[in-house]
Amino acid sequence: MNKLSASAKGAYLIAITPFTENGALDLASTDRMVDFYLAKGASGLTILGILGEATKLTAEESKLFTKQVLQRVNGRVPVVVGASSAGFAPMRELTQSVMALGASGVMIAPPASVRTDDQIVAYFDMVNETLGSDVPWVLQDHPVSTGVQMSTGVILRIVKNSSTCVMLKHEDCPGLAKLSAIRAASDRGDARRVAILTGNGGGLFLPEELTRGADGAMTGFAYPEMMVDVITAHAAGEIEKAHDIFDAYLPLARYEQQAGIGLAVRKHIMAQRGVIACATLRKPGLRLSNSDMADVARLTERQTRRLQELQ
Amino acid sequence: MNKLSASAKGAYLIAITPFTENGALDLASTDRMVDFYLAKGASGLTILGILGEATKLTAEESKLFTKQVLQRVNGRVPVVVGASSAGFAPMRELTQSVMALGASGVMIAPPASVRTDDQIVAYFDMVNETLGSDVPWVLQDHPVSTGVQMSTGVILRIVKNSSTCVMLKHEDCPGLAKLSAIRAASDRGDARRVAILTGNGGGLFLPEELTRGADGAMTGFAYPEMMVDVITAHAAGEIEKAHDIFDAYLPLARYEQQAGIGLAVRKHIMAQRGVIACATLRKPGLRLSNSDMADVARLTERQTRRLQELQ
Amino acid sequence: MNKLSASAKGAYLIAITPFTENGALDLASTDRMVDFYLAKGASGLTILGILGEATKLTAEESKLFTKQVLQRVNGRVPVVVGASSAGFAPMRELTQSVMALGASGVMIAPPASVRTDDQIVAYFDMVNETLGSDVPWVLQDHPVSTGVQMSTGVILRIVKNSSTCVMLKHEDCPGLAKLSAIRAASDRGDARRVAILTGNGGGLFLPEELTRGADGAMTGFAYPEMMVDVITAHAAGEIEKAHDIFDAYLPLARYEQQAGIGLAVRKHIMAQRGVIACATLRKPGLRLSNSDMADVARLTERQTRRLQELQ
Amino acid sequence: MNKLSASAKGAYLIAITPFTENGALDLASTDRMVDFYLAKGASGLTILGILGEATKLTAEESKLFTKQVLQRVNGRVPVVVGASSAGFAPMRELTQSVMALGASGVMIAPPASVRTDDQIVAYFDMVNETLGSDVPWVLQDHPVSTGVQMSTGVILRIVKNSSTCVMLKHEDCPGLAKLSAIRAASDRGDARRVAILTGNGGGLFLPEELTRGADGAMTGFAYPEMMVDVITAHAAGEIEKAHDIFDAYLPLARYEQQAGIGLAVRKHIMAQRGVIACATLRKPGLRLSNSDMADVARLTERQTRRLQELQ
Repeated sequence: MNKLSASAKGAYLIAITPFTENGALDLASTDRMVDFYLAKGASGLTILGILGEATKLTAEESKLFTKQVLQRVNGRVPVVVGASSAGFAPMRELTQSVMALGASGVMIAPPASVRTDDQIVAYFDMVNETLGSDVPWVLQDHPVSTGVQMSTGVILRIVKNSSTCVMLKHEDCPGLAKLSAIRAASDRGDARRVAILTGNGGGLFLPEELTRGADGAMTGFAYPEMMVDVITAHAAGEIEKAHDIFDAYLPLARYEQQAGIGLAVRKHIMAQRGVIACATLRKPGLRLSNSDMADVARLTERQTRRLQELQ
Repeated sequence: MNKLSASAKGAYLIAITPFTENGALDLASTDRMVDFYLAKGASGLTILGILGEATKLTAEESKLFTKQVLQRVNGRVPVVVGASSAGFAPMRELTQSVMALGASGVMIAPPASVRTDDQIVAYFDMVNETLGSDVPWVLQDHPVSTGVQMSTGVILRIVKNSSTCVMLKHEDCPGLAKLSAIRAASDRGDARRVAILTGNGGGLFLPEELTRGADGAMTGFAYPEMMVDVITAHAAGEIEKAHDIFDAYLPLARYEQQAGIGLAVRKHIMAQRGVIACATLRKPGLRLSNSDMADVARLTERQTRRLQELQ
Repeated sequence: MNKLSASAKGAYLIAITPFTENGALDLASTDRMVDFYLAKGASGLTILGILGEATKLTAEESKLFTKQVLQRVNGRVPVVVGASSAGFAPMRELTQSVMALGASGVMIAPPASVRTDDQIVAYFDMVNETLGSDVPWVLQDHPVSTGVQMSTGVILRIVKNSSTCVMLKHEDCPGLAKLSAIRAASDRGDARRVAILTGNGGGLFLPEELTRGADGAMTGFAYPEMMVDVITAHAAGEIEKAHDIFDAYLPLARYEQQAGIGLAVRKHIMAQRGVIACATLRKPGLRLSNSDMADVARLTERQTRRLQELQ
Repeated sequence: MNKLSASAKGAYLIAITPFTENGALDLASTDRMVDFYLAKGASGLTILGILGEATKLTAEESKLFTKQVLQRVNGRVPVVVGASSAGFAPMRELTQSVMALGASGVMIAPPASVRTDDQIVAYFDMVNETLGSDVPWVLQDHPVSTGVQMSTGVILRIVKNSSTCVMLKHEDCPGLAKLSAIRAASDRGDARRVAILTGNGGGLFLPEELTRGADGAMTGFAYPEMMVDVITAHAAGEIEKAHDIFDAYLPLARYEQQAGIGLAVRKHIMAQRGVIACATLRKPGLRLSNSDMADVARLTERQTRRLQELQ
């Protein structure tokens, strides 16, 4: 088995969920998407996250999609499945079901209802009990979507309380100081070291985050090669090169990270790149206007040109 | 079939979901609870709402519980099922499944993500399309839990756009002016008349709401006879008597309506009344302290005494 | 000087700010209001709180009103002034100015921007530094208006860090468990004892809060004699009598505590009682409809009747 | 007089408020800052906004700072003053005072308490009445800080109701579709044309916003020449050049736009550029760590290099 571990690193790509024109699951595009991500150098995949439109799927569809992805990946990289849930019974059920299918771990974000330090820690104690001792899990720190602000101290308490928490998905913003503080704690030996993959604003701070000690990125972008290439250059000590690559993609990445419309942009580009057959989002989901598509076209052209200059 | 209609009135009780000591669904208690509610004069039941711990159930459990309630009710009163969902595919699936089991309609609250008037109306247009033309539904207006504020104008637009929206569950607070305005609109013939059942603060404004034109209540309280008796007296024109009854229960009702701890109080009393075997909530759920239970004991005794004085 | 201290107890009344028909400060009514509160047995007054429409006053008006109240009170009871502010410079300025006029202390609530335990504690460390070593202050815990949830541990840390924090205004809901926990900490000697006055829902849990160890109430209600009489009876060990009095006022108190419309109700009744000349609120402020006023009339009559029965 | 009008365009810079090491207003730096902004090509200035730490100033300091800026500007460009306030009396007082000093108009954002379309429109009707018929004002649409979402329809209603509303500060995100829709309404003659200056994410979508019909930007950035040069190139029809300039600054602009730490970055750079004597923020305000400063140094160097390549 390909279980997720604290030594994970590289680019974990947040997968979209491809739909056909009429909104059905598109399993053929799902296979192409998996191939595309792996061909671009993904170190892992994450499915059924917010940008995977997880909440728009029925339980049956979630299982079907997970199965398809896992079969296609076939153990080549770890696959993490989003399992945040309003209740522990559905969380347990979904977790057991995807782990049985071959998932490598699950990712859990806190519900909006927890606020104080103690409430957050108590919540994750219950998560830990729910998942059991065999399921590696990722703590997702994403205040923009959850409304929950976890201090460095709280994150370290959660990690301490759960030996199966092996990774932090770091998406607090501004988050560089926090990232430094968490890394410093494990460097000093005050805390167990977990992998930290960042997803801040869809990777909009990736070079700086790597400098602060992140092990990679877990996020989506229609050009996953950006994440892979930036991480590779950075790991090789070529910091300026990492920035050069990052800067070339930044104008489009910034555009794709607009809340609400960003997923439509991503699917539009992935359809244009031939990865998925159709850019459809399930309702409620924004559609790109002609002006939006013109923006994307201009940014894509400029990106291509800039990348050529860098060769 | 016992479909929900715009002529609904009386006390629709928000049912709890009984669990055994170890947190399993307690179907025997479920039967007793149904019998209890009907014996106390319920005009209808609502299941799988927030206070039914709906989000803590697996899809399988939701179906099992719904089936049990519907079998026990056996068509004697309408049963409404909460079907709010983060996505339309799960909403459709759950709706079709409970309607097939014999539910009388579903209840839908808006998601926190919709804010402007147009966003809210557009959302319910999609709800309407999702439910189809055969499923009567209840619009739940509960800003405290949803964060969504629907103006009178927005509610009337939703009702206008959907001929199957037959009821408003009114839980905005303060909400008396809004209730008056919605009722005035249908009285003037400017809007189709839908049933308005109130749930404000668990019925804490019931007599005033009835005076403003509410058709009844849809809420929970461990003494459902309060709702039934207040509505009956009010309908008979005995306004002062309605207030007398209400006031006798108010000290306990107020205590039971504390957010967070309220459901634990309700289950505690229902266990004490012999309705359910066990007061257990699923995690995360508060437990009553000894001091809490002493408060409840005092309030219950005082309530009994006051009701005797009123005889 | 009449400085606020940790031994404070009884009913501290949250004063309204009376305006004339055209919205100007009504200083004659202000004097009558002070006399009224003291005649009814107030142990202290709190001015320039949310229900004092503090944010609707200019700095000049705030000073003028404070001066008028302090002159009229003339040292007979302590006067606390709301001094929460978005910045520390204005907080310092306002505090120094009202203390120079003879105020007994200030009350500070946290800004919505602080969330984690450490952020909250750090904020109040800065408050403490801003107020200096001579100004007694009240920590206001009112999540409904601030959005800030302070755990028991956080409150105890704030109290520990500031020797001039002498009182907690307890308005978290549900809050009985927290009240018990804070009181238990000082009873065990783990924390310095501060006064705890409760304002929960305008006093809607007053008898239970007194049982848990509250020293009194700091809240507003158009019948302040309720608070005074409940506290007096409770302090004399006449618990059932305290509940009897409370229950008699509860139907109206509940009506007056509706967010948004509550202050209009309070001013309406205080005008009817002859305390203030005019029920005007400054914009934006709701006006009572005829139906609202009919509700109040009925509840007031019923309250009078019930109080007579209790004689 | 230099009153703000609907024909405003170009770069309106959101000014910081310079402080000395010990937190006092630094009026000498204020003069240098004004000179710097005008030398860089500012078409206008905006003071006492969120990033001007307005809430941290006393009323006296606000007046002093405003006076200093207005004297130094001396009518060369319009100066807009932030006048959002929790109450209308303070809003009126501040407005009258700054207009008397020579301000060109004020800027108003809605309070968090308004939610529905009608509530928002009613609020701005009261603003309009408060400001009177002589004061041009800017409608600030910044949901991230206010929590208020104004639809296109609501903005057009506000503009229709107030002939003195001459400008929209557009900071909704994603906001391109909204910008297009508002512009289309005035192009069709369905609405009065007001100036639209954008501040989205500190200008992170400036080129696209100009293409959609924005008249310029109203935002801050330690390199205001970016805004000026992008707007100039765009106005000259040199769209690709506008993007080239924008892209060169984007990596630093993105870094400076991190909520919370952004203002510290801006002041740090402005101190380094010799504009202000000291990078101090008033409490509560973040300080840059050594790692933060290293990030800024790297980004600044890369930016300089890239701008040279573009020559």
